[in-house]
Amino acid sequence: MNDVPAPDWIAVDWGTSNLRVWSMRGGAMLRCAHSDEGMSTLEPDGFEPALNRLITQLGGDAGLPVMACGMLGSRQGWVEAPYRSVPCTPLSDDFSSVGAVHIIAGLKQNKPADVMRGEETQIAGFLALNPGWDGVICLPGTHTKWVELSAGEVVSFQTQMTGELFALLCDHSVLRHSVRSGAWDADAFDTSVNEIISRPERLAARLFAIRAGDLLEGTAPATARARLSGLLIGAELAAARPYWLGRDIAILGASAQSNYYLAALKTQGVPATLADAERMTLAGLTAAYRLWKDAS
Amino acid sequence: MNDVPAPDWIAVDWGTSNLRVWSMRGGAMLRCAHSDEGMSTLEPDGFEPALNRLITQLGGDAGLPVMACGMLGSRQGWVEAPYRSVPCTPLSDDFSSVGAVHIIAGLKQNKPADVMRGEETQIAGFLALNPGWDGVICLPGTHTKWVELSAGEVVSFQTQMTGELFALLCDHSVLRHSVRSGAWDADAFDTSVNEIISRPERLAARLFAIRAGDLLEGTAPATARARLSGLLIGAELAAARPYWLGRDIAILGASAQSNYYLAALKTQGVPATLADAERMTLAGLTAAYRLWKDAS
Repeated sequence: MNDVPAPDWIAVDWGTSNLRVWSMRGGAMLRCAHSDEGMSTLEPDGFEPALNRLITQLGGDAGLPVMACGMLGSRQGWVEAPYRSVPCTPLSDDFSSVGAVHIIAGLKQNKPADVMRGEETQIAGFLALNPGWDGVICLPGTHTKWVELSAGEVVSFQTQMTGELFALLCDHSVLRHSVRSGAWDADAFDTSVNEIISRPERLAARLFAIRAGDLLEGTAPATARARLSGLLIGAELAAARPYWLGRDIAILGASAQSNYYLAALKTQGVPATLADAERMTLAGLTAAYRLWKDAS
Repeated sequence: MNDVPAPDWIAVDWGTSNLRVWSMRGGAMLRCAHSDEGMSTLEPDGFEPALNRLITQLGGDAGLPVMACGMLGSRQGWVEAPYRSVPCTPLSDDFSSVGAVHIIAGLKQNKPADVMRGEETQIAGFLALNPGWDGVICLPGTHTKWVELSAGEVVSFQTQMTGELFALLCDHSVLRHSVRSGAWDADAFDTSVNEIISRPERLAARLFAIRAGDLLEGTAPATARARLSGLLIGAELAAARPYWLGRDIAILGASAQSNYYLAALKTQGVPATLADAERMTLAGLTAAYRLWKDAS
């Protein structure tokens, strides 16, 4: 413990199902701690103790300034943080504070109606590490975001429920009998992406064909699972075409999911850059910490 | 009890989650009984006692001939009945029998891969009541079927997971917070059907917009629920266009669901006839009983 310098602030990413906390010294990450006490598992008076447990575990002091992003700022969270309207920079110095905890505002778009919480911090991190970058950021997840950036501002964005649909269909639908596999059929994925991009209206019918193909032809589970993923990501690409066609693309996510999006874009001849989501979150929280310090 | 004549056979519709049994005399229904002992709730040795309980309740004799359709003929059911390949008549005299119980075969289509179990009996019932009818039958349900009929045969069919997607999204997704309502916004339904038929690739993005619209504008739950239904049924119509464009349409289903499909087709200027699913099932099981008697 003696080798680790004392933290001067705490970074927090508090999502629906997970809490991640890092002790920080300036822009340097010292140590990290995770728990499954996500926003949806806590009552209003449970947030502070859950956070302090992890800060103590990191050897931090409960009085340190905390910069936090994610669903803890939602109506069902700890303190409701506002949504700022795009076009705007991903961060501002207007935090929602409770004690030493400073919560980053989400972003909203009025037409078409859309919202984000947490992704704005990753986007700020990406811009901090790639100053002046213009293009489109794709953030795969339960609710995947496509975000258009120009001159340091979020211009517009679009959320798709692809990840949530994949999980619901895998775990709860009639397809659950057909897609249980840890393996992956990359050809079936590419074929399905191409098929649904050219005929996006066929989605609901092609989904049931995965089950029928299993019953009639004994489709391998790795093939069925890759088809399901390919159909859903392909349908997403069809809907997000204005975002990726002829643009510079960066994918910010965890590695497995990001690689599926990379492969799907590749079927359309579109290259993309990968960036690690956790690294972007930390860079974004660091940018927020600097904004907060400058303003206070 | 004295007024009811003795049954000479038993009609059974055994689905995934429900068992429905009728005592019959020729083509006349005498009495009916329902239970929630569907196929998915039973072990292999549970089917016979579950059926006999309802037959006894109806005053029937366990030795009477039983004609049965539905998921009891699936691999996870009582006895696996084969699938017959389309094009073919909806029924044949080739039943899968266990004791006095005669299970009706399902139908399969090889390309695109598709299957049905139970709907073939409703289709046979519709044809028995409407001899010589040519056109397309839509059977709304967990897995909606679109079926092309010509000269008394099923020529082709297409299954869509619309009903299952609606239930999963209402009960398990982030939209569950926004769509809890017993009311209905018919204008929002029509608008959503039209919107997604003209741009079917936008489905996954428009789904999340239901949630964002609730957060930003406080969309009424009746509007959000009708939008969700309209987007899913509209996407289904886009996929099934070759089935309904310029054809005579009959919708076989329970009344609420059938009326949504009727309204959706009406937005496209397509008229359709409604037929009651239970009545069609009984007419189809009666046709099967006659085929079985003639063959035995």
